[in-house]
Amino acid sequence: MIVCKFGGTSVASAEQIKKVANIVKANPQRKIVVVSAPGKRFSDDIKVTDLLIELADAVLNNGDIEQKRDRVVNRFKEIAADLGLNHEICDVIAKDLQERIDSDQSNKNLFIDNLKASGEDNNAKLVAEYFNSIGVPAKYVSPKDGLVLNDPPERTYALPETYENLKDLAKGEEIVVYPGFFGYTKDGVLRTFDRGGSDITGSILAASVKADLYENFTDVDCVFSANPKVVNDPVGISEITYREMRELSYSGFSVFHDEALMPVYKLGIPVNVKNTNNPSAPGTKILPTRSLAGSHPVTGISADSGFSILYVSKYLMNREIGFGRKLLQIIEEEKISYEHTPSGLDDISVIIRSTQLTDEKEARIIKRVKEELHADDVYFRHGISMIVIVGEGMRNNTGLAARAASAISRTGANIEMINQGSSEVSLVFGVLSQTENQILRALYDEFFAPITIG
Amino acid sequence: MIVCKFGGTSVASAEQIKKVANIVKANPQRKIVVVSAPGKRFSDDIKVTDLLIELADAVLNNGDIEQKRDRVVNRFKEIAADLGLNHEICDVIAKDLQERIDSDQSNKNLFIDNLKASGEDNNAKLVAEYFNSIGVPAKYVSPKDGLVLNDPPERTYALPETYENLKDLAKGEEIVVYPGFFGYTKDGVLRTFDRGGSDITGSILAASVKADLYENFTDVDCVFSANPKVVNDPVGISEITYREMRELSYSGFSVFHDEALMPVYKLGIPVNVKNTNNPSAPGTKILPTRSLAGSHPVTGISADSGFSILYVSKYLMNREIGFGRKLLQIIEEEKISYEHTPSGLDDISVIIRSTQLTDEKEARIIKRVKEELHADDVYFRHGISMIVIVGEGMRNNTGLAARAASAISRTGANIEMINQGSSEVSLVFGVLSQTENQILRALYDEFFAPITIG
Repeated sequence: MIVCKFGGTSVASAEQIKKVANIVKANPQRKIVVVSAPGKRFSDDIKVTDLLIELADAVLNNGDIEQKRDRVVNRFKEIAADLGLNHEICDVIAKDLQERIDSDQSNKNLFIDNLKASGEDNNAKLVAEYFNSIGVPAKYVSPKDGLVLNDPPERTYALPETYENLKDLAKGEEIVVYPGFFGYTKDGVLRTFDRGGSDITGSILAASVKADLYENFTDVDCVFSANPKVVNDPVGISEITYREMRELSYSGFSVFHDEALMPVYKLGIPVNVKNTNNPSAPGTKILPTRSLAGSHPVTGISADSGFSILYVSKYLMNREIGFGRKLLQIIEEEKISYEHTPSGLDDISVIIRSTQLTDEKEARIIKRVKEELHADDVYFRHGISMIVIVGEGMRNNTGLAARAASAISRTGANIEMINQGSSEVSLVFGVLSQTENQILRALYDEFFAPITIG
Repeated sequence: MIVCKFGGTSVASAEQIKKVANIVKANPQRKIVVVSAPGKRFSDDIKVTDLLIELADAVLNNGDIEQKRDRVVNRFKEIAADLGLNHEICDVIAKDLQERIDSDQSNKNLFIDNLKASGEDNNAKLVAEYFNSIGVPAKYVSPKDGLVLNDPPERTYALPETYENLKDLAKGEEIVVYPGFFGYTKDGVLRTFDRGGSDITGSILAASVKADLYENFTDVDCVFSANPKVVNDPVGISEITYREMRELSYSGFSVFHDEALMPVYKLGIPVNVKNTNNPSAPGTKILPTRSLAGSHPVTGISADSGFSILYVSKYLMNREIGFGRKLLQIIEEEKISYEHTPSGLDDISVIIRSTQLTDEKEARIIKRVKEELHADDVYFRHGISMIVIVGEGMRNNTGLAARAASAISRTGANIEMINQGSSEVSLVFGVLSQTENQILRALYDEFFAPITIG
């Protein structure tokens, strides 16, 4: 049994939804279909979700509600017409949207959530309607009947009972069409996951029904070994482990939302990233383990800018039990998470995403580290990029760090930090952001470029 | 004004003490002389401190006190006779030792401290006597008059008033001969520093009198760039910064006790490591800063075995604020200090000196990390060595990490961890201990071996 999820571009138009239907029909194992809201049809198009955010904003700030509402409704009407569906489904969608517009606005965030979620919810109704219209028995199922979320304001996640509630979801004869992106609290309040949250819904459903496979349909043939915006025509990845995928979750690998894989990861359910527009391409398989025989030592290289380094030094630091812990506590008390903490004997660097910092927070941290930890030197540096080389095959691969560092040094760039832990599945370099792209290309060439003779 | 400290081998015999006198006479700036207890005269010799430990053991456990006491006294008698001193000084020493033997044993550790310290204390008296006998006005000064220590059982350190108490120590006409290694609490209880603690005494005195230079006389011409027991005839270091010295304080660089440099470091007083047996050799200068012009990027390479790695992995670890801090807290609660914490996105390795671990502690840590932090995987690995490449000139030295990693990879050894923080004064590699010496030699060859042609 397969749970398949179709992203925004896969359900952006009638033409795309027809492809979805063909994919679902092609394999009777595909019993659960999770859909996003209609996405972009062309690069300057506006996603329905963004139209809905504009609509919510208009409602909350006395803007032009009607015009914005009609843009959403018309988008669905156009799809429905192109799919040859009658107006009934459009009436359902318009009525639903109006009810949301008229709903309680006392909690602005929840009101916005409620409007946003209508994109997925109504699209699921529309897709189910279309499936039935072409003789594929299908039913829309609302998350109200099982996808139970925690209460706000905590970051949204599914409560454990969800998996029990939904375990028989695929038992019927009909194909289940399920909206991604949202669920309901025990009190029936609608909440959404973070953006990209349809992936999470698909993953939760796959785990609930203990699917054999979770297919994630998007608009690329596969996950690439490096960011195609930086590296020219990078090699595609055919198989990757969960762990590799996680280590690569810096930018350039935004195929998956970070937390989306968690439910399937826990059960070891394989994931297949596939292309709605080219379903015969094998795509990228994300697996608990994979054979390393004959495979490349490096699976992928990711790079991301926007990091800062907090540098702290103190003579005899390493003799002081608790120094590192106290430093991390100060950072934690500012509600800041960190990436790495490379250290010398008397110094420690804490790598932090710069978006978490403000001048105020920095000043407070520096003051506390000086006063409470009696550090000799404390300062922040900004404009740092992290470059991560990932591969299960890197383990025990003598010389790989040497090759990587040599490739970087050939660009003339300086290495600000290096980090390789005992797992040896990843090797992290900190570099100045202005050298990031150049280094990414150099590393890609080192590990992936075909050897040219001459 | 110079404070000079002479180590155990520098005062091991009459012949050595004559060298000390010549060194002191050669420069009128040398106003304060700190002495250790007589050390080894030949490789199988026993240090007076070790004889005193045996004596203390005999007193506490009803052993042969007299024989062990006489060995100590005879050692001093022999030196005194060879220096042409009369028996009076030996009577003083014998009487002092007997008083210590008869002293309070209620706190065994303090009793042992009291006996051990007599080696330095009585040697200082003997050296002062000798100086006077050859017409060099000198006086023995007891730490009782100023070197104030904290109370037990806390690790011994000098209280701040020490520096005020001793600030005029060099003001008189006579040369001050001061015993190293010990001081007294406010209540007059004698306590010793850790082994090698005469270096600390010298450093404290140099800081107290704000000396222009702290000379540390030992039995080597200089600090070497790598352990001479592993690397054949390593290059000597002429200048090194405090920070480099600290980063090199793993074995092979045991010239200085870790904490010894702290007092002079704080005031930026330069240190000169020199050879009593070859005083014209320039030795190694330890300085707050040094010119990097024309200097080698790498100053030294140290290596040390006896490390363990605690490996912890958890899916989505880096999303969890406080994970690293909680892990370090568990380790801290076992009173364990750590060296480095290299990490991936979902894993963290904690490098720990293996001597701090027991089967019990390991089991407790693993249990707590699993139960309290819900880690996916937790285990210890042992038999790890740390190799540290150090140099102020490494900063902004593009390609140095590449050269180091390449040199290691040529040995065929695998790199278990790499760590380079933002200070860029050191680059740390974790390797399996059986590959340590081979790697140290390979790195030395890479960075120090003269280029041979042909």
